[in-house]
Amino acid sequence: MKENFKSLKHLLDVAAGRVKADLLIKNCRIVDVCSGEIREGEIAIAGQQIAAADAPGLYEGEVEIDAQGLYALPALIDAHIHVESSMCTPEELSRLLVPLGTGTLIADPHEIVNVAGREGLDYMRRAAAKAALHIEYLLPSCVPATPFEHAGATITAEDMEEILEDPELRGLAEFMNFPGIVNASEDSLNKLLAAKDRGKLIDGHSPGLSGKALNAYASAGILADHECSTVAEMQERIARGMFVLLRRGSACHDLDRLLPGVTAENSRRCLLCSDDRQAHTILSEGHLDDHLRRCVRAGLDPLTAIRMATLNTAEAFGLKDRGALVPGRRADITLMQDLRDFKAVQVFLDGREAARDGRYLLPVERADDRAVKASVHLKDFSEARFRLPLKSDRVHVIEIQPGGVLSKNTIAKVQRNVAGDFIPDPSADIIKVAVVERHKLTGNVAVGLLKGYGLKEGAVALSIAHDSHNVIVAGRNDHDMALAVEALVRMGGGVALVNKGQILGEMPLPVAGLMSDQSGEWVAEKLAEVNRIAVEKLGVNPHIEPVMTLCFMSLPVIPELKLTDMGLFDVTRFSFIPLEAE
Amino acid sequence: MKENFKSLKHLLDVAAGRVKADLLIKNCRIVDVCSGEIREGEIAIAGQQIAAADAPGLYEGEVEIDAQGLYALPALIDAHIHVESSMCTPEELSRLLVPLGTGTLIADPHEIVNVAGREGLDYMRRAAAKAALHIEYLLPSCVPATPFEHAGATITAEDMEEILEDPELRGLAEFMNFPGIVNASEDSLNKLLAAKDRGKLIDGHSPGLSGKALNAYASAGILADHECSTVAEMQERIARGMFVLLRRGSACHDLDRLLPGVTAENSRRCLLCSDDRQAHTILSEGHLDDHLRRCVRAGLDPLTAIRMATLNTAEAFGLKDRGALVPGRRADITLMQDLRDFKAVQVFLDGREAARDGRYLLPVERADDRAVKASVHLKDFSEARFRLPLKSDRVHVIEIQPGGVLSKNTIAKVQRNVAGDFIPDPSADIIKVAVVERHKLTGNVAVGLLKGYGLKEGAVALSIAHDSHNVIVAGRNDHDMALAVEALVRMGGGVALVNKGQILGEMPLPVAGLMSDQSGEWVAEKLAEVNRIAVEKLGVNPHIEPVMTLCFMSLPVIPELKLTDMGLFDVTRFSFIPLEAE
Repeated sequence: MKENFKSLKHLLDVAAGRVKADLLIKNCRIVDVCSGEIREGEIAIAGQQIAAADAPGLYEGEVEIDAQGLYALPALIDAHIHVESSMCTPEELSRLLVPLGTGTLIADPHEIVNVAGREGLDYMRRAAAKAALHIEYLLPSCVPATPFEHAGATITAEDMEEILEDPELRGLAEFMNFPGIVNASEDSLNKLLAAKDRGKLIDGHSPGLSGKALNAYASAGILADHECSTVAEMQERIARGMFVLLRRGSACHDLDRLLPGVTAENSRRCLLCSDDRQAHTILSEGHLDDHLRRCVRAGLDPLTAIRMATLNTAEAFGLKDRGALVPGRRADITLMQDLRDFKAVQVFLDGREAARDGRYLLPVERADDRAVKASVHLKDFSEARFRLPLKSDRVHVIEIQPGGVLSKNTIAKVQRNVAGDFIPDPSADIIKVAVVERHKLTGNVAVGLLKGYGLKEGAVALSIAHDSHNVIVAGRNDHDMALAVEALVRMGGGVALVNKGQILGEMPLPVAGLMSDQSGEWVAEKLAEVNRIAVEKLGVNPHIEPVMTLCFMSLPVIPELKLTDMGLFDVTRFSFIPLEAE
Repeated sequence: MKENFKSLKHLLDVAAGRVKADLLIKNCRIVDVCSGEIREGEIAIAGQQIAAADAPGLYEGEVEIDAQGLYALPALIDAHIHVESSMCTPEELSRLLVPLGTGTLIADPHEIVNVAGREGLDYMRRAAAKAALHIEYLLPSCVPATPFEHAGATITAEDMEEILEDPELRGLAEFMNFPGIVNASEDSLNKLLAAKDRGKLIDGHSPGLSGKALNAYASAGILADHECSTVAEMQERIARGMFVLLRRGSACHDLDRLLPGVTAENSRRCLLCSDDRQAHTILSEGHLDDHLRRCVRAGLDPLTAIRMATLNTAEAFGLKDRGALVPGRRADITLMQDLRDFKAVQVFLDGREAARDGRYLLPVERADDRAVKASVHLKDFSEARFRLPLKSDRVHVIEIQPGGVLSKNTIAKVQRNVAGDFIPDPSADIIKVAVVERHKLTGNVAVGLLKGYGLKEGAVALSIAHDSHNVIVAGRNDHDMALAVEALVRMGGGVALVNKGQILGEMPLPVAGLMSDQSGEWVAEKLAEVNRIAVEKLGVNPHIEPVMTLCFMSLPVIPELKLTDMGLFDVTRFSFIPLEAE
């Protein structure tokens, strides 16, 4: 929202009562997050801004709406989310989230920037511009996430200096390379300074960090952390000046565990976020309205909870133009039935009605996405690349852990053929997993072994494989694995399930190989379908999510053992290791 | 504080425990304004920054100090002050304030900029750079305060655009021309946009404003107001998103009246300030330590009070590098005996010990002030300019009101000589008052009549006359008035008392005619002395402060009747009027 002479004059004319408001929302209960009070009154809107939120009967409007006693809240703000995790594009996510009362996302386009670099960021901004939802992007700080993999792009400290000159980018997104900061690596320091020199914020990510290491991380000026899973971690961060984001996404459910740590004294340092929230979770459980319900159900004062999703976040991230229903701020208003179920009835963004009774009222116009399509590029790829010669039958295998993000470094005995190549034992739950580099035509293919996935036949391939998003494929035989990878090339990315030379299921994700160009409902249904096929037809372990679990087996910052396009990576030792055990 | 690679690396090295802290303050009770807790611990300092404020025994220091259980608070922040009102230069004010626990002033150099324009601002910044105290200047928004007077400078919206490009200037100081905003005047809007377009803040000043007019003022994006004198005014502003500054200066004592309005729900929107605080008040009553004592005495939780003078202010004004004792922020630390008397024992600024046991430990080095000296320039001035011909003996007189800032527009009958000129009646308390333009060589001299000053003989002249700071002189006879004005020219400004052709008292204020180049103690004593002489020798009303009262009689924004160099000004009608009554 850029104010100019004309908009400012109109705003003051409306506020002073010289001209009618463009829109007057009468008869609402205004949730005043500044005073901490709820007052009956009316909201006068001029252009995109609030001119007044005052007592009843003061203003007149060109258009007047009777809110019939509904609660008026500032539209909700998610303090940290990855749009790509919904597998929906920004325009489509706007359609899903706005009817739930959300007005702003502080988004880290980490996934697409790892695939498509600055073109990915540009696309996400173009797409956000088409959406009613305000999406405030931070610049991904760790692209690639580690030097131990090939991503589609590299963003150096020098690149950041240039990109951060853009006044619309408020800073660096979650600085995941916390060892780089704690150990004061030159590269990390230069990145921090690129942001600091420009007065930009630096968001954080520091799971498990504590004591002196946390002091070092906080010293660097890290604004916030969304990785707390205990009240003690939360308290330690608040005492070091960091904001704490209470997260509830599709996979990570920290919010309820952390709520007992929210006190009257520290609540202003607490915010709400979802991090990764898939379309099906949004459609079935909601978004920040779900967080608010949980807060209030846990006994938190509704006003405190609402502040955590509005004013606190706006203040922490310097979004001075929103987060409260006060004169001069964006007219981002959610009308809700009550402060218990937080069901959004009507949502206004920039003074325009954007959703009513759960329906998005605006057309979903798609931004030009050609620059980020057809993103799966392989070199010298063939079935033969999945051959796995072993010098020993005692090998390291990546063992999936409950929850599906962590893995264990397990040593197992496997079968080999006469040439010494790995051959799967039909009675053992150990299969091949491969990462095929898809960005830079390096021709890299790394092959490892995966335990606990349950796959009994065929292959599963994805172009989502955190954080570099190469192709990851798991399979019982090289032929089906290769077919599944080739299906992904054809689709421009997505999910492919193959058995006995036949494609059993496909979910195209043509936008950077990460997002669908279909509706959120399609995404939710399709993902459920491929997951169901993977379990029912291919025998994947029914206790894990087939797609989500596999896509994390390539993430070399989450312990213990992962596979990148460059090889088998021991996260604990932070180095590559051979498959063969010592 | 500008971080560079070296300072950042050292900070992280200390925080992580790889090298010793430069300074370790052991055995203190850390007042954690983020968590709202007080914890025993130690503070490790690296360079100018806090590396850790943590549990005891974690760190080692090159230098270690045993705080013997003292409370460690973030150094205090005054949210709004005019340095010039102390009549001390910034370097000297640093000497007075730092030993009281103050670390930062958010200062409006309104007086000196009205006298000396950008040279005045530059001087104040040069002087602040010599001080241990951090003085964060905002750009005066209304220079001159009104178009109805001649100041030494004019700062247009266009000038602001240029000046505000400076990243060290955080925004516009108190926007006193609130009618200009409420009425959406072109000039005011352009000034607002000069700040908004650059992401700068706009501080406020809106005494008595309410209802729709206040909505308009708040709509403009005004950050704060320090002019509340009732709880209702305070609540009205907080509900409109403004921060409220609870003020206690030498003249304005709103703090105690407003404290009952501070609640657990709204306290984060409340800050502390002094606005105008003279040297004698500072020396006898203190600074923000006085505010804190009053808060706690009024029953406020000490932590809430401390936050109002630290974290809240830092957050409101975007001073992200201070306001809390957490890693990465400035090592601005005040050690205090208790949280009742708030007596500062030791004060560290930027990691350096700056005061101990009430003594400032650093040398007071003065900045070059030649550019703002010799600032009293008259044209065609002579005793004859004080002649006051009247067409009628029924005239408007400026009647001083209790408190000394407001005046009444009173109609009185006066004596005239045969030529029709005013002649003072020895039995009536009505004397001449004149404003002599001193900046632009306009030769302007305006003469009016003053009631209630009590002056029985001689004359009093000042070069402090809000807000344009022309020379103001009140006297029983033209000759003494002229002598007093000439004494000011000689001194380069200040205060002069004359009787029967003799100078009875002089207080030189050579720095822009506003500030002394002597010590704060000298200022306090000298001001008391000239005030005493004015009462005892010249008969000025003992119930008013002779200097402070006279200096407000030229301020055309405070009702009802004032005199500028351009004539008699009716503040209620906002226009000039003739002396003769209708």
